[in-house]
Amino acid sequence: AGLGGIGLDTSRELVKRNLKNLVILDRIDNPAAIAELKTINPKVNVSFYPYDVTAPLTETKKLLKTIFDKLKTVDILINGAGILDDHQIERTIAVNFTGLVNTTTAIMDFWDKRNGGPGGVVCNIGSVTGFNAIYQVPVYSASKAAVVSFTQSIAKLANITGVTAFTVNPGITKTTLVHKFNSWLDVEPRVAELLNEHPTQTTLQCAQNFVKAIELNQNGGIWKLDLGKLDPVQWTK
Amino acid sequence: AGLGGIGLDTSRELVKRNLKNLVILDRIDNPAAIAELKTINPKVNVSFYPYDVTAPLTETKKLLKTIFDKLKTVDILINGAGILDDHQIERTIAVNFTGLVNTTTAIMDFWDKRNGGPGGVVCNIGSVTGFNAIYQVPVYSASKAAVVSFTQSIAKLANITGVTAFTVNPGITKTTLVHKFNSWLDVEPRVAELLNEHPTQTTLQCAQNFVKAIELNQNGGIWKLDLGKLDPVQWTK
Repeated sequence: AGLGGIGLDTSRELVKRNLKNLVILDRIDNPAAIAELKTINPKVNVSFYPYDVTAPLTETKKLLKTIFDKLKTVDILINGAGILDDHQIERTIAVNFTGLVNTTTAIMDFWDKRNGGPGGVVCNIGSVTGFNAIYQVPVYSASKAAVVSFTQSIAKLANITGVTAFTVNPGITKTTLVHKFNSWLDVEPRVAELLNEHPTQTTLQCAQNFVKAIELNQNGGIWKLDLGKLDPVQWTK
Repeated sequence: AGLGGIGLDTSRELVKRNLKNLVILDRIDNPAAIAELKTINPKVNVSFYPYDVTAPLTETKKLLKTIFDKLKTVDILINGAGILDDHQIERTIAVNFTGLVNTTTAIMDFWDKRNGGPGGVVCNIGSVTGFNAIYQVPVYSASKAAVVSFTQSIAKLANITGVTAFTVNPGITKTTLVHKFNSWLDVEPRVAELLNEHPTQTTLQCAQNFVKAIELNQNGGIWKLDLGKLDPVQWTK
């Protein structure tokens, strides 16, 4: 889990449950947020490691080894790093798609039952734009379509790897991500304003449904988290 | 257009039509193939420029400037570069998805009607795996889902940019791409063999339907080119 808008509220909800450990990976530390999470439920061991999802696969594996060595087991990986800025084509794809694929690939070293691993659960954060693009941000939307497709494939491989997977796909949520962002080639300079005119949800509503989806833990599930609701979605054929 | 299996046969079909110019961009020159294309219809001016789609946007723009300066107009861009090897995560995404986005973005400098450009047509080569993943190659399949999503957004922006877009999505085709390839983390070492047991089509059948789709020139079209047939596909909601 991370410390962004939805990430922090989701972590707040998660620590209310009886977890043993919550490991937060994010580019930038936020000691106040980590301290707050520890206060909510002192029984949960909350730790933080700096991590940039654009790191090479080998570095990610090293970091995961440190974490697995310390905790012995990890039950679930939540891939939530994301940027929304269609002026930054390469970075959008690197963070939203390649980083998520690499992190998932890296953890397979520790989970894959073909290597004697215990299996695990991957929860990938997509977006409703993965199936209903916001066409003014075609690169962002396509990166999220890739996340949904990738996760569905990983779910179908669970019988081989022992690792299940599902996506949670938030709709427009009142987060810093949508305060202001660039459309592709500035096709719609007012895209952020226009989106915020649409019905939205708070990060808290989104986080509560996020945790519900985690608790449902349905392999291959595609969850839409929009307008304060949690709904399953069918992906193409 | 390129010089791969489907690319070369499509170029052969294209030059039979009364084109003025056919510009081939590919990483590696194939003088024999270019000579053959010139022989099929000497009235078509066939030219070749070396191009790697993983080049930075600025370099692509320079190459396109050379081409536009020479030809004055370009009617259609066919983005067809693709690799299939799920051991190469970064390269699969860079070639199949980022390269296609960058090439499309670069040509907008010359076509965008907001800058006084004449508009144009983008034809992106996806894959049936964009909507029906081959889950043993989750990265390849996801990169193709991204291509379909991206292209649908570009099509919806046509009223702003003057540039229309559609995808052609081949099924399993008897090309070098599927002779042998790696699955993700070797989840299925026999994936290429298993696929080739399925009904397939020749590159010629695929190329003929490819050119039909180009002639239909339907903005937002998602064409499935499978089993020697050409069919429209609906993409999610």
